[in-house]
Amino acid sequence: MELYLERGYEQTTVAEIAERAGLTERTFFRHFTDKREVLFGGSSALQELFAGAAAEAPDGATPIEAIAAALEAASEMFEGRREFACRRQSVIAANPELQERELIKLASLATAMAHALVRRGVSESAARLMAEAGIAVFRVAFDRWVDPHDELSLTQLIRESLGELRSQLVGS
Amino acid sequence: MELYLERGYEQTTVAEIAERAGLTERTFFRHFTDKREVLFGGSSALQELFAGAAAEAPDGATPIEAIAAALEAASEMFEGRREFACRRQSVIAANPELQERELIKLASLATAMAHALVRRGVSESAARLMAEAGIAVFRVAFDRWVDPHDELSLTQLIRESLGELRSQLVGS
Repeated sequence: MELYLERGYEQTTVAEIAERAGLTERTFFRHFTDKREVLFGGSSALQELFAGAAAEAPDGATPIEAIAAALEAASEMFEGRREFACRRQSVIAANPELQERELIKLASLATAMAHALVRRGVSESAARLMAEAGIAVFRVAFDRWVDPHDELSLTQLIRESLGELRSQLVGS
Repeated sequence: MELYLERGYEQTTVAEIAERAGLTERTFFRHFTDKREVLFGGSSALQELFAGAAAEAPDGATPIEAIAAALEAASEMFEGRREFACRRQSVIAANPELQERELIKLASLATAMAHALVRRGVSESAARLMAEAGIAVFRVAFDRWVDPHDELSLTQLIRESLGELRSQLVGS
């Protein structure tokens, strides 16, 4: 990660990453399939976390309450990893290919949450709508969280964004 | 487009597209930079349409009203092109690379709308939130519109989805 920041993602080789981490290339490839994996390795775990928390929300929870539960579970996982998240964000912001990968990852998180809602009996279109809106809330909150000028916790920022979305929609 | 449906996008060459359309390859490349462009050629016009309509909403319009105006302008543009949209959707659904391209295009539409809202004096984070939620509404409505079993117009579907999002958020 430090190397991505120092030299740029494109210019960093797996050999250099392994050397900096005190690993052989062989060991590197036992942990990661490629250098992109260093940034996106947690994607499937995150997907399970979002979908799992939405699925396990109490029976009487409305779709948006299930989504809120998923976002809170994710934010708990991220708290304490802010420094890594900030660095990762800088690397991604500097590389359009990684931004595309991040978009695709976020879309798959939305799909996973939508499936969890459908299994709760929510209609397909309402589920997609709520899941996409939930991811929008997550992204906006996450971007504020990794901003060095913002002091709130990710959980607080998620609640604030969700409240903002609600008041914007209701106010009209 | 027909060829993409018959043979699959990957298997279709520019030479075949040009032949089917009665063009030389040279003429094809005067209209499109590559074969992907046949599917995504209207992206920047669409971006201007969304951002323009959001920008031109009346002065007193709330952010969500400006977004709704943008979605309605886009849906007017699409009405009458349903057959093309359905075929295009089938081609994209069959090809992960094109799905990624579509995601990136939708993200750039959200960014364009968010910028238009910021220029209307909306805060950065509220603008992003509303623009992303607007794109979620648009996607869900659009997918229902290209479904042969759905008979409503795109404008009706957009209103329905926006209403659904609102009632889901308020109900909780």
